[in-house]
Amino acid sequence: MKQSEFFAKTLMDIPKEETSKNAQLLIKGRYIDKLMAGVYTILPLGFRVLKKIENIIREEINAIGGQEIFMPALQPLENYEKTKRDNIDVLFHVDSASGKKMVLGISHEEVVVPLAKQYINSYKDLPLYLYQIQTKFRNEPRAKSGILRGREFIMKDLYSFHTDEKDFEAYYQKAQTAYKKIFDRLGLADKTYLTFASGGTFSKFSHEFQTITDAGEDTIHLCEKCSVAVNEELKGIQDVCPECGNKNLTKKKSIEVGNIFPLKTKFSDAFGLKYTDQAGQEQPIIMGCYGIGLTRLLGAVVEVFNDQDGIIWPESLTPFDAHLVMLGSNDIIRKEADKIYEALKATGVDTLYDDRDESAGKKLKDADLIGISNRIVISGKTGANVEFKKRNSDKVQIMPLSEAVKKIK
Amino acid sequence: MKQSEFFAKTLMDIPKEETSKNAQLLIKGRYIDKLMAGVYTILPLGFRVLKKIENIIREEINAIGGQEIFMPALQPLENYEKTKRDNIDVLFHVDSASGKKMVLGISHEEVVVPLAKQYINSYKDLPLYLYQIQTKFRNEPRAKSGILRGREFIMKDLYSFHTDEKDFEAYYQKAQTAYKKIFDRLGLADKTYLTFASGGTFSKFSHEFQTITDAGEDTIHLCEKCSVAVNEELKGIQDVCPECGNKNLTKKKSIEVGNIFPLKTKFSDAFGLKYTDQAGQEQPIIMGCYGIGLTRLLGAVVEVFNDQDGIIWPESLTPFDAHLVMLGSNDIIRKEADKIYEALKATGVDTLYDDRDESAGKKLKDADLIGISNRIVISGKTGANVEFKKRNSDKVQIMPLSEAVKKIK
Repeated sequence: MKQSEFFAKTLMDIPKEETSKNAQLLIKGRYIDKLMAGVYTILPLGFRVLKKIENIIREEINAIGGQEIFMPALQPLENYEKTKRDNIDVLFHVDSASGKKMVLGISHEEVVVPLAKQYINSYKDLPLYLYQIQTKFRNEPRAKSGILRGREFIMKDLYSFHTDEKDFEAYYQKAQTAYKKIFDRLGLADKTYLTFASGGTFSKFSHEFQTITDAGEDTIHLCEKCSVAVNEELKGIQDVCPECGNKNLTKKKSIEVGNIFPLKTKFSDAFGLKYTDQAGQEQPIIMGCYGIGLTRLLGAVVEVFNDQDGIIWPESLTPFDAHLVMLGSNDIIRKEADKIYEALKATGVDTLYDDRDESAGKKLKDADLIGISNRIVISGKTGANVEFKKRNSDKVQIMPLSEAVKKIK
Repeated sequence: MKQSEFFAKTLMDIPKEETSKNAQLLIKGRYIDKLMAGVYTILPLGFRVLKKIENIIREEINAIGGQEIFMPALQPLENYEKTKRDNIDVLFHVDSASGKKMVLGISHEEVVVPLAKQYINSYKDLPLYLYQIQTKFRNEPRAKSGILRGREFIMKDLYSFHTDEKDFEAYYQKAQTAYKKIFDRLGLADKTYLTFASGGTFSKFSHEFQTITDAGEDTIHLCEKCSVAVNEELKGIQDVCPECGNKNLTKKKSIEVGNIFPLKTKFSDAFGLKYTDQAGQEQPIIMGCYGIGLTRLLGAVVEVFNDQDGIIWPESLTPFDAHLVMLGSNDIIRKEADKIYEALKATGVDTLYDDRDESAGKKLKDADLIGISNRIVISGKTGANVEFKKRNSDKVQIMPLSEAVKKIK
């Protein structure tokens, strides 16, 4: 993609109220645009990163048996009355022309449970794992923290249905492992901890995945030995490491990047979701739910990976494989840069080519801000070679293109 | 995918009010589920078809320079006041906790124009083509026609920005060609006509793509010579073929599957979107918009391709490449069917494997209803061969698996 034609001009004036690092860098770098408080447009650069996040999540959830569906944002209020969630203050209410009371989904238990009820009769129909990657809405009184907490955001939500607690527990462990793989592939493994959190009124604990960063809205207490943490909300209930009893926990600010929650029979009971066991007896269905915020992850990764010059994408999320930067614009250099661009495309390296008539300073600054993992510079000095630099390193090397391609792949 | 584990049990009792063929077949076949009038969940089978529709559209829109973004559903009402669209009766209104008046987007001129304004200064920034594949909302008083007209639906909407009418016209032609390619790849080319429609108050004509089917809510007058049509809404304004003057037009019912619309400067004027030309003069920006409804297409394809037994997917949209049906369930047959399933997977044939303990009648009936393009039967009679049948043909052939694979690919 030629940068001269790409909808990605970096921006220097950003909205004053955007004090969070993630929003500042993502807006400056033209990954996202703010429409209203807590409501953002994903721009072409951001769309590329978001698709990579989406694919990683989809692959890992498919690998644990998830079947992908797409549920509506509009939901009947009466279903929330059944689960006693109709008074939740962050629900957006919407009235239909025909007088039907509706809400915009904050999650989808109220849709997926009646759906599962149509499908599940016997133990033979279980277990069942349904998920979606879809837009959620929350009527947040104050939307802050940039894209970390939006009024409209993209989530992966998975729901599991089981014959009994034992089957649920086994899948809950499997989901934990899948989540760890996801955060590993996103480059967040070192900073992300399985965190014990409140289980609501019906489960002892739920579990969150918390990524340590000063921008986080959450506080966790970390056991360095076990690499698990306890959410501050459990203060007085769980003050030691739940795994080893360690009392010396380290307090850290963090972002909740995922959560997994035992739902027991709370939602199945509300809709009368049962199954018939091998003895012909009706039994309640045990459920779990498993969320990951995709747009939140976009922000969380930026909070973790940046320096004073801009974003430093992990290779798994870089919007392009390589950023080809032409410095100087005389005909010889342009011809050489065009040639390198075609060669990169031919070898399957997805390349953003800065072919613009801008100063070297501006172009290198933009490249650092955008933060593509691999930079290739063509200038009056590079001759038959290219200058190669990783965004996460200061080492600048002159090498033949073929060698740079190897370093990219 | 083993059918015994797949969320796709066919359904015989469907909601009585669903009188449209598309909704009946899609609900029976478990492609979609109805949550409320005009609001549907896309189930795993439907999701697979929808992704294929999405990929075809994405490829063709990328090929004409479209840059993909993702705009919010929540939009500020004040932007609709600027374009005088705030009184449109199908707008859903939503109030934020902070008192901000918002609507759910019916389309995205009110978001994309202010966005483009941040980006476009000079003629060098033009042309620009931005699009998204995203969920739209319409507060329809009566939602009927199944998934053809939803209160919540998925659309591809593309917006183009130009320096002048001439540049716009050239792109408008290009978009027409891209749309024809899309409908061709969807298998709808023979039934889909470029149709002259009202251009609103500011353009003479807009253009629709209308697919002929009795289930359609629209009426068009078709010129068989030119393969173009005129929408009934132009009666009295355009009663002859706009291309050849032919007065003998054939009246047909049809579904609008796409539209392209010259916006002139209607929306650019509303937001003061201008550019500076080569002489340093400010000039208005000419716009076009180009829509295709993805969920509507899912329904339209079913309306066109079905018989008394169920859906007949075009090969480009079939949810699986092949439907492997095991008839009889003794150990020998099951072992053979398992082997064939593994062999199909190994050759990259995406297969739904009906491994269920059901009668032959039920399984073959389900296969016809679901409508996967290629059926492979393993039974006590097939021996070392397989029985192969295309869904769109009555010819049943016995052949080695390798030959069947060739017919699938």
